[in-house]
This record gives sequence, structure tokens and C-alpha cells, in this order.
Amino acid sequence: MNYRLILQFLGSLLQFEGAFLLLPFLVGLYYHESQAKYLLLIAAAAASIGTLMRIIKPKSKKLHPKEGFIVTALTWLLMSLTGAMPFFISGEIPNFTDAVFETASGFTTTGASILTDIEGMAKCMLFWRSFTHWIGGMGVLVFMLIFLKSTADEMNLMKAESPGPSVDKLVPRVRTTAFILYAMYTGITIVSIVSLYLAGMPFFDSVCISFGSAGTGGFGVRSDSCASYSALCQVIITISIIMFGCNFKIYYLIISKKFKDLLKCEEVIWYLIIFGLAVAVVCLNIVNEVSSIGEGVRTSAFQVASIMTTTGYATVDFNNWNTLARAVMVLIMFIGACAGSTGGGIKVSRWMLYFKQIKREISKYTHPRSVTKIRLDGNVVDEDTIRGANVFLMAYACVFITSFMIICLENRDLVTTFTSVAATINNIGPGLGDVGPTGGFSTFSILSKWVFIFDMIAGRLELFPVLIMFAPSTWKKK
Amino acid sequence: MNYRLILQFLGSLLQFEGAFLLLPFLVGLYYHESQAKYLLLIAAAAASIGTLMRIIKPKSKKLHPKEGFIVTALTWLLMSLTGAMPFFISGEIPNFTDAVFETASGFTTTGASILTDIEGMAKCMLFWRSFTHWIGGMGVLVFMLIFLKSTADEMNLMKAESPGPSVDKLVPRVRTTAFILYAMYTGITIVSIVSLYLAGMPFFDSVCISFGSAGTGGFGVRSDSCASYSALCQVIITISIIMFGCNFKIYYLIISKKFKDLLKCEEVIWYLIIFGLAVAVVCLNIVNEVSSIGEGVRTSAFQVASIMTTTGYATVDFNNWNTLARAVMVLIMFIGACAGSTGGGIKVSRWMLYFKQIKREISKYTHPRSVTKIRLDGNVVDEDTIRGANVFLMAYACVFITSFMIICLENRDLVTTFTSVAATINNIGPGLGDVGPTGGFSTFSILSKWVFIFDMIAGRLELFPVLIMFAPSTWKKK
Repeated sequence: MNYRLILQFLGSLLQFEGAFLLLPFLVGLYYHESQAKYLLLIAAAAASIGTLMRIIKPKSKKLHPKEGFIVTALTWLLMSLTGAMPFFISGEIPNFTDAVFETASGFTTTGASILTDIEGMAKCMLFWRSFTHWIGGMGVLVFMLIFLKSTADEMNLMKAESPGPSVDKLVPRVRTTAFILYAMYTGITIVSIVSLYLAGMPFFDSVCISFGSAGTGGFGVRSDSCASYSALCQVIITISIIMFGCNFKIYYLIISKKFKDLLKCEEVIWYLIIFGLAVAVVCLNIVNEVSSIGEGVRTSAFQVASIMTTTGYATVDFNNWNTLARAVMVLIMFIGACAGSTGGGIKVSRWMLYFKQIKREISKYTHPRSVTKIRLDGNVVDEDTIRGANVFLMAYACVFITSFMIICLENRDLVTTFTSVAATINNIGPGLGDVGPTGGFSTFSILSKWVFIFDMIAGRLELFPVLIMFAPSTWKKK
Repeated sequence: MNYRLILQFLGSLLQFEGAFLLLPFLVGLYYHESQAKYLLLIAAAAASIGTLMRIIKPKSKKLHPKEGFIVTALTWLLMSLTGAMPFFISGEIPNFTDAVFETASGFTTTGASILTDIEGMAKCMLFWRSFTHWIGGMGVLVFMLIFLKSTADEMNLMKAESPGPSVDKLVPRVRTTAFILYAMYTGITIVSIVSLYLAGMPFFDSVCISFGSAGTGGFGVRSDSCASYSALCQVIITISIIMFGCNFKIYYLIISKKFKDLLKCEEVIWYLIIFGLAVAVVCLNIVNEVSSIGEGVRTSAFQVASIMTTTGYATVDFNNWNTLARAVMVLIMFIGACAGSTGGGIKVSRWMLYFKQIKREISKYTHPRSVTKIRLDGNVVDEDTIRGANVFLMAYACVFITSFMIICLENRDLVTTFTSVAATINNIGPGLGDVGPTGGFSTFSILSKWVFIFDMIAGRLELFPVLIMFAPSTWKKK
């Protein structure tokens, strides 16, 4: 194990996080908030410790796949612990577990919250809370890859942090790919901020809500999430989260004017089809609760987009919907967004691989001698990727079941227990029952909260970077 | 497609079913019940139609895997429809859908019931109802293979009907394997009948309950299932259902005195470990509801064995247990019994294949160049079997989700909806909520009942024989 290189990466991370913390500090200065000093303090501490950690230079810059996974898992853990400190030492979130929960929920773009009085928080803290969504959405290691001196095998880091069954580079160089991704990400975020502001949302809200949309996070700045924003703002948010739930490849294709290739993006097409179907079913089932068809479509589209992209904003309490509409919400929790997006969940492309394997299995019985290759977005999918997607489903089931059993110790109803795990492992935020849009995670026990923190990080990193930390063979010397 | 051979098999099935119906007819004669005549009528009709169907001789005796699947699916459908006729024409179950539901539930050894007044049924009908469990448990095609003139490729039928990721023959000849399986099955059933009778259970009850245990079915002859039987009887039932949930291979090893090979039966060992763990957790969680530790262990063991082996008998209403205990019951619904047993569910061996794949995936990261073979019960599992087990999980998820969505139209609570599908697709019987041990399936709509009938048959045949019927490529001429 190349411990020195791992230390090097973690040091860089702290330096970057220190830099990130300056932005909410400036917001605090602008609003003359006393809590701002804690942000500066932690920024300075993080940067200093990070610099110290980087003193010992690694002997080799070779980063094996295993080490790439470990760097990624440790990065996300350290980032959450450090990011929690301003909340904790300022007393805005006096409980340490709660502070880590909120920060992990932010970075992993889950959006599950232990806060009960959002409007009572300092603006600089709310800004930091939303900013963690933006940082975590596209991935902090992907961001670091833009600036760090190129190390060998940086693709291993990109693979470990980027969601989806396989990771495509947009251009041959990893660094340039990372830059293009962040440029597009920043661009669409700015468009979202400006649109919301022009639609009448206060500027501070526009920025925070856009950060939450960009990362498909879900932290808002009001207790009612997005219910009190105008219909136009809600429509803008719906469109933007759907956009952030798409594979970013399509924006690169649009920029490069490769419009024909857009039609090959099967995953995005199916993502939009599933979204449309879910909206239609939900809309038909909530028709008695809305005053007009327009409101019905807007409300359904907002909630479906929010859950399917794993964002977690809400304009209504879907806990009160009928069984079928709630079941659709639970179902799309497990579908998730596209690979290569900022969304979480199992991902549309994995489900497509599962469906295509069922089809292939059936055709094996009818044409026993045929050899069928599975294709996705027009390309043949290699058997390693298929195996990875299959094992993901099994690991997902195991982590889900284990977490579910531990949360059962709370002795809450089964729907709350089940959806609280689904909402965290899929990085969504709200579930049903006690953890519905009007509920929250504040009343869970310390043990349950750490299980959720684990699920959020494991879910965001798609399990294996985290699971590998628990395998004894990982830590054995050769 | 060899339609003539398929017709031949279906004709034989009707002849066999006609013969089976004579047994409840004799029971009806013994009890001087007027309903007996309907059993004789349907027996005669089935045998006559079956004989007519066999007039046209097939040109070839070649049975392709695809045709084996289709024969199996059609056999189970036809068997359920024919078996429902005595209930329907006698007026004991006046609704046709209900009669088919009850019979499909019997043959598939589910044990889900639409009856509300079990004690009011004629004894010959209750006998037929329980006898369907016994026929379906080991499989009717496996039974037919003992008597039918050997056709080529009969292994394809055995594979399609026998549960588990792979099917081993005990001896080289399929026919002899089928005979040995049925001999052991009959033997243990007789031991169960005698034990229950000696323990004080009425003889009629002993026979019917033993049929239900043997097939891991769950139909009883009393409204309270097994609650009113003595503690000793409950213990005997617990032991016998656990035995019927084991891979029958172990009994063959015992008979052949290959005791050392028993230790290689990983699946059975894990099945017993999981059973023990589940009993322990449940027992700790219901400790306040029982009068003694002995009663706690007996009650937990009975309920856990009943659900894990997918039998479905009950001595208490586990709907009232706390969340963790109920969650354990839901979890073991999805684990199921051993391959090569009469139990349903996903099967312990499939879960073992999933776990071993996760382990292999993690070791691929730490030792990228190693090639690890997966072993089960000491033998290397070929990649085709692993692929089959994986695709099974995906197909299972798809059938489950689709059924769940349709049942949601009932607008019942999510726990009832979820567990009603789990209870039928896993061939268990009771679930939680409205379909708990004291509830039933009588109040569901016609549509929902047909979905459950589909799920029961699809679950019993492990999906693909049924799914293949819906693939257009199956019916295309070459």
C-alpha cells in the first residue's frame, strides 16, 4: 500500500476544503454574521494540517486500483468530518454526530437533514451547507484532478468517484475531461441561478437552491423546502434537476455539435421515458388533490423529478398521496438518475443492463447456439462491466438489508424504516412516514445516524470503495 | 416447436391428475359426503380428455430446452385449472377465480387462501386441497418421469421444474433419480403422519398437515392454522418442515451412508445457521409476549421455520410483533429454503452465490491478476450457473415490481401490498398486514387474484419457464 501517496492526496483535499470554506466565510462577512469567524478558523486549520501532511513526499506516484478506491473512501470521510467542524464549533449544530450527518448528507448530495429550524440558522452556515452539495455533486477528486500535478493512473480516482457502471472519458486526457465536466457543471449552475433570480427568487435563495439542484442534493433554505416559491420557480427547478440528472456526455455532444450522437444516448432517452411515465401515473392519482390539470402536472413533475434524480426537494407532502402514487415514488427511488450525472441511486443504465441480460437469457433458450453481445448507447458492453453491474446489485442488497435491520431497532413502522434506508443509500433525502418531506432525521438514535452516514457515503461512491476498506485482504502486506 | 409432443405431455398430465383425484374421492366416500361425486366426475373427465389428447403421436421425441420450459409452464397452468374444477362445480368455492387461486396456491405450495370458513368445507375437498401441496411439492413432472416411457432430454423437464440454481441428478438415470426423490419424499411424509397421529392429532388432520408440511405448502384444516394443536405436535411440525426445506441430496447421502459428504453441504449448513440466527433474534424480541423461555423458543422456531421454508403455517399472529421481529420475518421470506427441496423463495444457495461474487469482486481489486473460481458444496460452479443465478435476481426484481405496482391499485397500505406479493411469488402464504396469519386473500379484486396466481406459478417454476411464454421469439417459426 502506497501510504505516502494516500497521505499526499488527503493533504491536498484538506487544502482544497480550506479554500472552499473561504466562500461561506465571505458570505458571513457580507451579512455581518458572528459565525463567519468559525469558518475562517476551520479553513485555516484545514489548510495548515493539509500542508503538513504533504511534507513527506511519496516514493512512487503509482496509484493501484485498490489505492484509488481507498483514497476515494478516505477523502469522503475526512471531507465530511472536516466540513462538519464549522457547524459543530459554532454551536449551530451542537451535536457532533448531527453535524457529521448534515455534512455527509451535503457532500453526498443526499439532502437528509437533522435540522428542525432552518430559518434560525446563520446565512453563512446555510450557504456552506448548500455549497457542500455543489462540491460533492460532480466530485471533489474530479475537481482536484484539474489542478493537481498529473499522477499516473488518475483514471482510477475518476472511476472510483464517478457514478455509473462504466466511466467514459470525454477526451483522451483525464485532466481535460475533468475540466470540461466542471466547466459545463458551473455553466448550468450559473444559468440556474440567473433564471431563478429573474423569476423572482431572492438572490441568496437562488444560489443555494441552484447548488442543491446542481448536486441533486436537496438542502433548501426554508423549512417548507420549495413549497413557498412561485410556480415559475418550481418549473425552473424541475427542468434544472432533470438536466443535472442526465449524463453530462450529452451536453458535451451538444457543445461539440454532434447532434446525431444524441439519439444513441439510450440511457438518457429511457431516463426521460421513465420520468414521463411516472409523472403520468402520479398525476392521474393526485388529480383529486389539485385545483387544475396544470397544477397537477407541475406538482407531479416536480416531485417525480426531485426523487428520481435523487435531489429531494418537495413542494407538497407526498406522504398523503394514495398507495399507487407513493409506490411510484418508492420505485423511482430505486431507479435513480443517469450514469455520469450528479444524481445517485442504482442508475438507469444499470437497470438497462439488467433488462438486457434477462432478454439475452430468454433468447439463449430459444436460440441456444447464438452468442449475443449486450450493447448500451450503441457500444458493446464488455463482460467485466456487466459483472460489475451485477455484483453492484448484490452488494447493494446486502448493504441495504444490513442497514435496514439495524434501523429496525428503532421500532418505528416498516415504511419509515425501509424508506429511511432507501433515502440515504440512494442519496435522495426524504422518504415516507416519519422521514417524509415534512419529517426529518433528527429523532433517530446516534447508532442509526452513523448507519445513515455510512449508507450515504457508501451509496455516493457506489459501495465498493467503501466495502473494500472492510476486507482483510486489502490491508495484508504482500 | 414440437406441438405434438407438448400435447402428449399435457394429455399424460390430465390422466395423472384424474388418478390423483380418486384419492380425495375415496375420502369423500368414507365420510359419506355428497361432494365426492364431483371429484369422480372431474377425475373421469380429465382422464378421458387426456387420453384423447394422446391419440396424435408425436413425430419426434426430441424435447429442446425451450420446449421443456413450455411443457412445464403449461402443465402447471392446466393442472391448476383442472384441479380447481371440483371446488367450482361442487359450489364449495363458487367463484371461478377463487377456485383457481386456491388450487394454484395448493399446487405451487404457497398456501395463500381465499377461504374464510375452513371448518365449513367438506372433508374430501379439504383433503384434495392439502393433497395438491403434496403433488406440487416435489413436482408433478418429476412424478410423471417415473412412469412415462423414457423420452429423450427428460433432464430438461427436471431442470425446469426443480428449484435451485442448478439441478444435480442423484444417480446417472433421470428416471431413477425421480424415483429415489419420490421414495424419500413419501417416506418422510409417512413418518410425519405417524408422528403427529401418535402425538395426539386426529388422523385426518395428521394426513392433511403432513401433506402441507411435505410440500412446504401451508394449507391447514382449521381456521387458526396450527394454533390449537398441542405443543408436541407443533414441535413435530417444526422439525418436519425444516427437513422438507433441506436439499433432498442430504437424505440420499444419509441412506448411502456417505456421512463425510454431509459436511460438504454448505447450503444446508448455512440454511440451518440462518434459521438459528433468525430464531434467536425473534425469540429475544417476543420475550415479553410469552410465558416461558421454552414457549418463546418453540413459537419463534415454528414461525421462522414456517416462513423460511415458505410453508406458511402459524401458531401466533406475528403481525403483532415488534418491528425488528417482523423485519426478520420479511427478510427470511426473501431468503427461502434450500435448492432441491420442496421449499420456495430465492434459495439459500443463490444468496451464497451472490455473497461469493461480492467477495470475488473485492479480491479482484486487491489481487487484480488472480482468477478465482466460485465453489459451492465443494464443487466449482460454472459461469453459466452463476449467470443464471444473477439473471434470476434481476427477473425476480422485475416481476416483483410489476406485480407490486398492479396490487397498489387496491390502495391498501404499503406493507400489505409489499408482503402480499412477497408471500405469493416466494410461495409462502401469509404476509403482514391484511394478509397476515389471521387475514387472507379473499377480499382482493379479480385482477389482483390473477396477478397472484401468475406470481405463484412463476415463483414455483423460478420465473423463466413462465417468462419465456411471453417472449415473441419463442413462438417464431425457424
